[in-house]
Amino acid sequence: MNSRIAKLLALACFSAAFSQSPASAADALVLMTDFGTSDGAVSAMRGVAYGVDPKLSVSDLTHQIPDYDIWLGAYRLYQTANYWPQGSVFVSVVDPGVGTSRKSVVLKTRGGRYFVGPDNGLFTLIAERDGVAELREIDEKVNRLAGSAESYTFHGRDVYAYVGARLASGQISYQQVGPQLPVEAVVKLDYQKPARQGNVLRGIIPVLDEKYGNVWTNIPKSLLDELNVGVGDQVQVRILHKGKQVGKYVAPFHHTFGGVPKGQPLVYLNSLLEVAVAISQGSFAAKHHVGSGLDWQVELSKPGK
Amino acid sequence: MNSRIAKLLALACFSAAFSQSPASAADALVLMTDFGTSDGAVSAMRGVAYGVDPKLSVSDLTHQIPDYDIWLGAYRLYQTANYWPQGSVFVSVVDPGVGTSRKSVVLKTRGGRYFVGPDNGLFTLIAERDGVAELREIDEKVNRLAGSAESYTFHGRDVYAYVGARLASGQISYQQVGPQLPVEAVVKLDYQKPARQGNVLRGIIPVLDEKYGNVWTNIPKSLLDELNVGVGDQVQVRILHKGKQVGKYVAPFHHTFGGVPKGQPLVYLNSLLEVAVAISQGSFAAKHHVGSGLDWQVELSKPGK
Amino acid sequence: MNSRIAKLLALACFSAAFSQSPASAADALVLMTDFGTSDGAVSAMRGVAYGVDPKLSVSDLTHQIPDYDIWLGAYRLYQTANYWPQGSVFVSVVDPGVGTSRKSVVLKTRGGRYFVGPDNGLFTLIAERDGVAELREIDEKVNRLAGSAESYTFHGRDVYAYVGARLASGQISYQQVGPQLPVEAVVKLDYQKPARQGNVLRGIIPVLDEKYGNVWTNIPKSLLDELNVGVGDQVQVRILHKGKQVGKYVAPFHHTFGGVPKGQPLVYLNSLLEVAVAISQGSFAAKHHVGSGLDWQVELSKPGK
Repeated sequence: MNSRIAKLLALACFSAAFSQSPASAADALVLMTDFGTSDGAVSAMRGVAYGVDPKLSVSDLTHQIPDYDIWLGAYRLYQTANYWPQGSVFVSVVDPGVGTSRKSVVLKTRGGRYFVGPDNGLFTLIAERDGVAELREIDEKVNRLAGSAESYTFHGRDVYAYVGARLASGQISYQQVGPQLPVEAVVKLDYQKPARQGNVLRGIIPVLDEKYGNVWTNIPKSLLDELNVGVGDQVQVRILHKGKQVGKYVAPFHHTFGGVPKGQPLVYLNSLLEVAVAISQGSFAAKHHVGSGLDWQVELSKPGK
Repeated sequence: MNSRIAKLLALACFSAAFSQSPASAADALVLMTDFGTSDGAVSAMRGVAYGVDPKLSVSDLTHQIPDYDIWLGAYRLYQTANYWPQGSVFVSVVDPGVGTSRKSVVLKTRGGRYFVGPDNGLFTLIAERDGVAELREIDEKVNRLAGSAESYTFHGRDVYAYVGARLASGQISYQQVGPQLPVEAVVKLDYQKPARQGNVLRGIIPVLDEKYGNVWTNIPKSLLDELNVGVGDQVQVRILHKGKQVGKYVAPFHHTFGGVPKGQPLVYLNSLLEVAVAISQGSFAAKHHVGSGLDWQVELSKPGK
Repeated sequence: MNSRIAKLLALACFSAAFSQSPASAADALVLMTDFGTSDGAVSAMRGVAYGVDPKLSVSDLTHQIPDYDIWLGAYRLYQTANYWPQGSVFVSVVDPGVGTSRKSVVLKTRGGRYFVGPDNGLFTLIAERDGVAELREIDEKVNRLAGSAESYTFHGRDVYAYVGARLASGQISYQQVGPQLPVEAVVKLDYQKPARQGNVLRGIIPVLDEKYGNVWTNIPKSLLDELNVGVGDQVQVRILHKGKQVGKYVAPFHHTFGGVPKGQPLVYLNSLLEVAVAISQGSFAAKHHVGSGLDWQVELSKPGK
């Protein structure tokens, strides 16, 4: 009698525990698009995700990527992904080629994060920095929102949000996404990698810190250290557009903007520990008409060398 | 002895299970307003919702509805609601009449979704497409945030977010919202319903896909099919404002923008499987000065008929 | 035998309950910054928070605080905090002094809410209205994101989001934030407190309800009641900038905008039950060139007194 009660209780307890496990197991789902938030597109994607699992934790990276700006989308993923827990699933929709032959993939990094979206270069920086553990093409025959077969123009809702949610909730394994592709097949944008040649560091201006007009580079602290630049040391900054010099400046290296008087330029390390150039309480980019993207190169050196 | 232990355990298990049940049971709460997100209004609504149940899943549809634009609010609900799970609760605040005699209601669709807000036309398209299962007026004597009796201008926070959260969390049943109203009493905006007259399809331009300048109509794929329009077939598009023709165009029907050369117009099905008109990689609305709303009609036919 | 089973079951049940308790116990984490949402900064903060506890409920108050506008940030906290549950943790980053000597603190109000951020005046209105139960300086030696020691310019991500998440999830107690500071040490901005002098009520215009052009004051209903102002009674409104009168108006007091014809001014109580001035379906601020902030004073009285 008591042993039967005990068995019933065991069942009750374990099923109770199990009924919670999805919530415990679910990984974060992060959405990034160029849709903006003034219409219903992002909300439809969220609805699809919660339809897969109401307990999912869904967040927005940003939906303000400029239309079709694949490079900037790639940079936003690079800027934020590693601050998210292992297992997080990023659904990224900057997709000028929707409805064309570009592949839909889920990339798994060596760090164990997942990136869902069109294989059009969006994953360039993630792949290069974190390494591609595995790449799979989404099999839309099994991984597509039911009833969406006649919709051709909103893969973000019908395929990417749906697959991302199923993956984040554990309803499908990564293997069930679809067939494996060679890891080297991931589409990558071409650009000047950070590099040192003698006493000169070369890189690009991947993005501006637009709110403040600061100029970010893709040159890491480790390379700057190779030039033995210490706090207060002068750094020469050459900025080029399509290979042609548009400006040459000398500014001291400091940890914070307080290191120089208001209105003075400085070289510092941004929040990714990469070299940046700014004017204290001013806009370097506006003053010197500096832009960003694949065509904007930068060179750093110690003056007089 | 053991049986007493067993009873205690039963209590422990079931109460434990119960303490989790809100999380399991809670339905999604979705907020839509014309408040924008630069001040604290939306956050106050969220706070009220989490005060009702900290485990609620609260999402934003959009808060960028143009001031008092009830029609656009109605369209955003129509565009997104059915991508959300059954049981989802939509709190919609586009409320030029706050503080007047307009009713506050919760509408339940035949699909089992709930719409909380002012009965001012916001629910027109939801009611027409999904059907009204039941309509109830919010009884503010029992369903109002404690201590908010002297606040007259923020029903979104004091009434709608509060009622929506209680409903989504299961703290009140739908019946406890308040007295039933006749389903046909729901306020509806008047507009040209999609219809076929002979070889002509009539409808309106409910909204523009503003980011891209695409012109959406409310004419469904099913009506277009009645004209036997296939991929590549030419379609004549007449656009009228307040009944007066402002433009007449002929463009081929394609599934995706890739179907025509850059700069060329096309007719396609948008993400709601309704007819839309666009220029590939261009803005049809800007080029032809097309607007949207109840005054913008559209007629589709096969050329030369 | 059964008693051993019973003990095992007890263990199972209680551990199951315990394994859920973080979810049950977690308090809301609310983020406010002047970062905007177009880059990855806010998402990096969210990622750090979910890395601390994937089950956290993270919300945005707003990220549209104008750059470095500490006063407006203080007002947004004041406007929204008390609509959130007790225990909620607000991470506030409006931080012109990042990298300088300004302290990083967590303030606990008498109402049991927590405010994480730079001690630069952001907590002025919260402290004055709700009272400071305790103030602690963040000990960054133990409360800083692992691996962020070389990052000097993003305390919002490396310190504030991290500490806020640990506090909200219960991973650290409030005492573990760091050493106690005297409650009176919290930095406060100076401004004209609401006050009655004879028949005149004095205050400031802390903020405009910008979407509608309504002019909000910091004068509470309780003070207006001392002048025995009833619905329909005329109120004289003097507006001063840096002590110099810029306008003088007389308008009736009403609960809602419907109380006056379109285009007419009125005095009403805003959603915080503080006095506001508006034009029905118009913009009082635009028509009369009224701004907001510490330099904008207001005086209310009954006409002819």
